[in-house]
Amino acid sequence: METIQMSGQIGSLDKGGLCRLALTDEDKQMRDLFVKWLKEADLAVRFDDFGNIYGRKEGTNPTAAAILIGSHLDTQPEGGRYDGILGVLSSLEVLRTLNEQPIDLERPVEIVCFTNEEGARFEPPIMGAGGLAGVFEKSFIFNCTDKDNKTFGEELERIGYKGSQKNRIDGIFSFIELHIEQGPVLECENVDIGIVTGIQGMNWLEAKVIGQADHAGPTPMSMRKDALAAASKMITEIQQIVTEQDTEATATVGRLSLVPNSINCVPGEVTFSIDIRHSDDRIRKHLHSEVLQRISTIAVIENVQIEVKEIWETDSSHFSQELIDCMTEQARLLGYSTKKMISGAGHDAKYINKLANTAMIFVPSAGGKSHCQEEFTEEAAIEKGANLLLRIVQKLAGG
Amino acid sequence: METIQMSGQIGSLDKGGLCRLALTDEDKQMRDLFVKWLKEADLAVRFDDFGNIYGRKEGTNPTAAAILIGSHLDTQPEGGRYDGILGVLSSLEVLRTLNEQPIDLERPVEIVCFTNEEGARFEPPIMGAGGLAGVFEKSFIFNCTDKDNKTFGEELERIGYKGSQKNRIDGIFSFIELHIEQGPVLECENVDIGIVTGIQGMNWLEAKVIGQADHAGPTPMSMRKDALAAASKMITEIQQIVTEQDTEATATVGRLSLVPNSINCVPGEVTFSIDIRHSDDRIRKHLHSEVLQRISTIAVIENVQIEVKEIWETDSSHFSQELIDCMTEQARLLGYSTKKMISGAGHDAKYINKLANTAMIFVPSAGGKSHCQEEFTEEAAIEKGANLLLRIVQKLAGG
Ligand SMILES: NC(=O)NCCC(=O)O
Ligand SMILES: NC(=O)NCCC(=O)O
Repeated sequence: METIQMSGQIGSLDKGGLCRLALTDEDKQMRDLFVKWLKEADLAVRFDDFGNIYGRKEGTNPTAAAILIGSHLDTQPEGGRYDGILGVLSSLEVLRTLNEQPIDLERPVEIVCFTNEEGARFEPPIMGAGGLAGVFEKSFIFNCTDKDNKTFGEELERIGYKGSQKNRIDGIFSFIELHIEQGPVLECENVDIGIVTGIQGMNWLEAKVIGQADHAGPTPMSMRKDALAAASKMITEIQQIVTEQDTEATATVGRLSLVPNSINCVPGEVTFSIDIRHSDDRIRKHLHSEVLQRISTIAVIENVQIEVKEIWETDSSHFSQELIDCMTEQARLLGYSTKKMISGAGHDAKYINKLANTAMIFVPSAGGKSHCQEEFTEEAAIEKGANLLLRIVQKLAGG
Repeated sequence: METIQMSGQIGSLDKGGLCRLALTDEDKQMRDLFVKWLKEADLAVRFDDFGNIYGRKEGTNPTAAAILIGSHLDTQPEGGRYDGILGVLSSLEVLRTLNEQPIDLERPVEIVCFTNEEGARFEPPIMGAGGLAGVFEKSFIFNCTDKDNKTFGEELERIGYKGSQKNRIDGIFSFIELHIEQGPVLECENVDIGIVTGIQGMNWLEAKVIGQADHAGPTPMSMRKDALAAASKMITEIQQIVTEQDTEATATVGRLSLVPNSINCVPGEVTFSIDIRHSDDRIRKHLHSEVLQRISTIAVIENVQIEVKEIWETDSSHFSQELIDCMTEQARLLGYSTKKMISGAGHDAKYINKLANTAMIFVPSAGGKSHCQEEFTEEAAIEKGANLLLRIVQKLAGG
């Protein structure tokens, strides 16, 4: 709880949340503190060429593949104090606890903090883990730009966390990520632990609607090519499409900007993002093409142009059945209630799953809220998650 | 044409337009050049406490009230090279021409450049003229802030154009403002000159929609309070209301911002402007209350809060019949075709009309376009407008 409180002071906002975008000064400050904590826990610290930070505790078998635990420390522009952070800090707590135990584990245990999981500054998200897993080319990652046209590469170098490629973790036995649910299910159903069986597939798009800027007074309604009027109809339609599909499908327009953005100007250009998710990839692909088709139709009706850029696509992921069973059993032994569930949010585990057996532990989110300052998880709930993580690490690392 | 070209170099953008927001460095640069031109034309230069700049040519009767001509030199963030500017520069041309004529006029003639007509940086618009006419309190104007929280007062002082109150023009016989139409009528009907009989009434509002920021993945559509989804429906509805009213009514949402504005966040807060116009004040007031009522209903349905701020309201204006007749007659003598029309755009003439007999000359806008970089008026059309302005000044000033 003390580490959560200290982390909650770096990039803190007015309503209890955090703004600690990837590779900013705040991210650096948090990383520096994290590295200090790792060293205090006698862990061997290194960071790789994507800026992923590792802390390693050796096992009795020097050649055995490691148990990897961790998550990310970056946040949304108005994020909470738990998303990602809880996974890193409960992993740290697990390692501190292991240090105090008399029995030596056979396998090494590594804690990891992945770079830019949120994708809020540099798109797409899950970048550090995706780089490690070979999902994204290194040159692609390094050339990604933020809204001020700064590149990932420049910024990683600037904050002093560009390590060498040979520091990438090599040989993961299992990866376990603890995370807040970020949705309402566990709280609603009064369940202690979510056993995550997989992660939804996702599409990220950017649509640019091009109309004609004009004067808000003398331009008759019938002669306008109002990019925002058209975009508003598209946004309504996009949400209609997923609502008609089923209760699981989601579509979100989270980012939008307009030009010239002046009170007495008919908007000439509107750019907005579209995030589409579903655990069934066929359904998601169908929604994706429905969205494209219907916004194009609206563009024709509204007499504007539209250009759509595909930012990111990822199929749904399915975690290790063995780990799922092992986690369920350990939770039972601890007396915790569990529920198997699919994650609607992307996580570093999504891409590490491509490298090694992977699974996730969810703890409840108060009111299901996340990606907002109100994000909260109770101390007692965190303790259960961390206890389960400790048990699984002990089980997997052997002794 | 040379002055238009030189003005077109201050704050110039990539597509031929200008960004010369009120009281910025670009505005100062343009003002400095304008003052230089005034001095070269032997005019007595002064500026008042609102930063309105005057150049005065004395008449033979030192106690006679002046003929005032002019407009504004500030622009939209992506504005054209004619809006306002043409009125100031054609007035300068009139004064240069008068200097070359053998006959002295009886009345003094003053040229004016009003401060912040656009309202694009500091709201409301027509601020310098409104201050002069007593429509806005001086303290209100000086405390108006831009988006970076800089005040009008600070910025006026900073660019060195805060003059003294005693420099305000006192005793205007008539004010004539030449302006581009900013709409499509004159061009469509192939008419040389618009004789403006009045200006529409307007409302400016700002709506803030308060939902709940949340994660774009695990938050089911049914549990969201998506401020942008709600705002999109409101925008569609607002435009529906005016379109159903009649062909004259307009409503524009020109400015919009969202929080947190992140691709994987459900928008928690959206703020947008609403501009409503009609020449019949009863109809405009009806539209205003319809808009308020229907966006409130949408807020209830969409489960979000809404707060509406009234930024500005101005009734429709009616210009001097005497001047309208005089202008029509002079245009006839020059062989120019004319059309009487209501202006859909606000102008400095709107408020100066409260102080003295006022009227306006419109010249055609290519394609009706304005408040965009494509704004354009042909040289031959400008010449006709300037010739008519010269004739009227001569007529009114007597000699
Ligand atoms: N866990 C989380 O918030 N990840 C960000 C990527 C996403 O949008 O799902
Ligand atoms: N003429 C002009 O563009 N004025 C700006 C104020 C308005 O929005 O009408």
